[in-house]
Amino acid sequence: MSQIETYITEHQDQFLEDLKGWLRIPSISTSPEHKGDVLHAAEYAVGQLKDLGISHAGLIETQGHPLVYGEWLEAPGKPTLLIYGHYDVQPVDPIELWESAPFDPTIRNGNIYSRGACDDKGQVMLVLKALETLFQVNGTLPINVKILIEGEEEAGGESIEAYIKAYPERLGCDAAFICDTHMPSPETPALITGLRGIIYTEVVVHGAKRDLHSGTYGGVAPNPLHALAIIISRLKDADGHIHIPGLYDKLHKPSHEEKEFWRQDPLHMNDSFLKEMGVSQLSGELEYPPIERASARPTLEVHGIVGGFTGEGAKTVIPAVAKAKISLRLPPNLQSKEIFTLFEQAVKDAAPPDVRVEVVNLHGGEGVIVSPESQVMQAASEALNGVYGTKPVFLREGGSIPIAALFDEVLHVPVLLMGFGLPDDNLHAPNEKYSLQQFFNGVRTVASLLQKMAQ
Amino acid sequence: MSQIETYITEHQDQFLEDLKGWLRIPSISTSPEHKGDVLHAAEYAVGQLKDLGISHAGLIETQGHPLVYGEWLEAPGKPTLLIYGHYDVQPVDPIELWESAPFDPTIRNGNIYSRGACDDKGQVMLVLKALETLFQVNGTLPINVKILIEGEEEAGGESIEAYIKAYPERLGCDAAFICDTHMPSPETPALITGLRGIIYTEVVVHGAKRDLHSGTYGGVAPNPLHALAIIISRLKDADGHIHIPGLYDKLHKPSHEEKEFWRQDPLHMNDSFLKEMGVSQLSGELEYPPIERASARPTLEVHGIVGGFTGEGAKTVIPAVAKAKISLRLPPNLQSKEIFTLFEQAVKDAAPPDVRVEVVNLHGGEGVIVSPESQVMQAASEALNGVYGTKPVFLREGGSIPIAALFDEVLHVPVLLMGFGLPDDNLHAPNEKYSLQQFFNGVRTVASLLQKMAQ
Repeated sequence: MSQIETYITEHQDQFLEDLKGWLRIPSISTSPEHKGDVLHAAEYAVGQLKDLGISHAGLIETQGHPLVYGEWLEAPGKPTLLIYGHYDVQPVDPIELWESAPFDPTIRNGNIYSRGACDDKGQVMLVLKALETLFQVNGTLPINVKILIEGEEEAGGESIEAYIKAYPERLGCDAAFICDTHMPSPETPALITGLRGIIYTEVVVHGAKRDLHSGTYGGVAPNPLHALAIIISRLKDADGHIHIPGLYDKLHKPSHEEKEFWRQDPLHMNDSFLKEMGVSQLSGELEYPPIERASARPTLEVHGIVGGFTGEGAKTVIPAVAKAKISLRLPPNLQSKEIFTLFEQAVKDAAPPDVRVEVVNLHGGEGVIVSPESQVMQAASEALNGVYGTKPVFLREGGSIPIAALFDEVLHVPVLLMGFGLPDDNLHAPNEKYSLQQFFNGVRTVASLLQKMAQ
Repeated sequence: MSQIETYITEHQDQFLEDLKGWLRIPSISTSPEHKGDVLHAAEYAVGQLKDLGISHAGLIETQGHPLVYGEWLEAPGKPTLLIYGHYDVQPVDPIELWESAPFDPTIRNGNIYSRGACDDKGQVMLVLKALETLFQVNGTLPINVKILIEGEEEAGGESIEAYIKAYPERLGCDAAFICDTHMPSPETPALITGLRGIIYTEVVVHGAKRDLHSGTYGGVAPNPLHALAIIISRLKDADGHIHIPGLYDKLHKPSHEEKEFWRQDPLHMNDSFLKEMGVSQLSGELEYPPIERASARPTLEVHGIVGGFTGEGAKTVIPAVAKAKISLRLPPNLQSKEIFTLFEQAVKDAAPPDVRVEVVNLHGGEGVIVSPESQVMQAASEALNGVYGTKPVFLREGGSIPIAALFDEVLHVPVLLMGFGLPDDNLHAPNEKYSLQQFFNGVRTVASLLQKMAQ
């Protein structure tokens, strides 16, 4: 057994204890009442960095939640890798569906359950543990590293965007590594070659000046909830087609190779989706292969509707105002600002004339396409092959990591998107988990990646 | 000044204190946590009955909230009037829009503000104060009375329905008086000749077996919120037409006189609606006059949608389940059970094939048409003329008081629908109020009604 392997094996419990300590902090970045917890989680990460040997580590203040930054640049002549992750987490509702409390990390059947277990504290922690392992075994790191961990990934990421744009030279590097993605199964390592961008909006519909009683006003009153239903049904039909004029015109055609890969579905994503969702048929644009729909097509989803009476029982109110949270996932080259303008116009065109509509742009981020040919991607491919015994597949992921586009556009460096999540990790849902086997394989892979980058 | 008028004038403050005491009890019948308050409100009503001279008063236990019952039958040879009201109230959300707390009755500008001020504690209290006035002035009542006050009017009214059907003989009477309606303005007394029925439903849409992340599953996942939007948009279009096959076929044609009254709109309801709602145009079926739409046409309204993320900020969840609260108002002779069956089928037909739909019948009640020719209506007309100095108009009201149909069908007696609410009383909404002038005119009118019925 190599010294690396021995160290990892002997320190499994400690690695998990350090992860649990971080997971216990409810760093929900979108909740003002959790502001102190978010700061606490940032400070915890700084402590971890210092403990593992990165003495130059601390917080960078921003307009929002702080950035965690650490650097170790004592490998002259070797490449510098910028490592990115995030320490904030999603809200926990509906909390009643959690089998164990979201901030009481619990191990069951080889998984650790907690909000943030996979997204993204677990994935960041495995990188830190890979660094610790290399320091402990070799007394040094094989390459230079800069570590940047943000606290607003689930809240729009404005602060890190402003920082990167303001100080690109401070983050100078040879490659950027984002550890926040998935692989299709524990036997199928993957490297991500594309991500979708996003716009997240709130559509606010105003009717009468006050809530009304449907007995007295039903038949003459505007109903903002009904108007929202009409707007939403006009924006996307039951077959998954989005009716935003101009949207599909701007979509780049995928390569012949990608189309063949999607069509053949060698990873059996069709069956995986059916099983993971517990449905008998998939939804959406049936004329496209499922993996293409989930990773490379624009999508529009409603995430919540607010307005009227939603308690137990019956109340015959016609609300004065109703709101819907609606996002679009945008394949690379659909620019978020441009699409928001098209979306806003489409919403206004879809609205019945008896209501007044506002469209709020809560946040946006760009998609990205990365080349599988870069040195860092090749090193990662070899590292995964060494740990998993099989070469990784190159995939697009349907989620949005706007920081990837920023690294690409502002730092002009190759981006590595390598993560160890699994499809059933319940991201953004109750019972989020992370596979312990994936966590430790991640430590091994990242340690190997750094060694290979030094060669 | 008559003795009646003198008594009312001298006891105005005490009348209001007794009303405030009742309004302070948050008797929200749909909230299990308010069960104790609902009972407390019932006991308060019993106390009021006993205090005013109806010694035979108490609670009638039911499967749900108790009925308050009192009777005074010491006027042999005189008619017996059954008086109905309800002591339960609507929920208070959105509570942040109340200018004073909903259960802290507050007098401002000649109105008393509180949940239940108009609907229906204020209207019941004015009847009790009319009885008190007659007792105090004359030492007796001019006719026999039975008083029945329920606690589930806002929650489906099942218990009173069961009671009336089980014991119609106990409620034997010559006429029934329901004090739970409105008049168009303080200068225009009204008697109600028609009410709409109602079905109140919950449409539950199931998608995947768990909440999903739109990044990973957007494009292949069923979205119950989107499916609900499609269902709702298919049930009612932007022009107010309801697409439930068979619904309009069952609608009776109104009389020529009613149609003319609606078309001429002598009460200027069109302008009133615009002003009360603060809108520049009315909604709904523009080919029908506004007053007909609001009182005599079937309507479908969405009252609330539950599902997904509705907090501050952004969460990219695709919920596993979403629910909508939807009601229909049904003109007389559209039977609630029959229409529910049509509605359920229409919802299922409107649902996209990738979701599973349940339709729950939360409650229903029938509409009613009453004759303006009955003795009790004529007596009420004279009483209103005496107090307001002008004859009442005969109107339909758009709301639903299922008990009116029950009195009609089970007790076979003429029903009097006379109330003193005003259109801007904010029923079922924040800042519910009741006009003090209307309250005291109500006391005068009801005292006069009983005297006229004795003649």
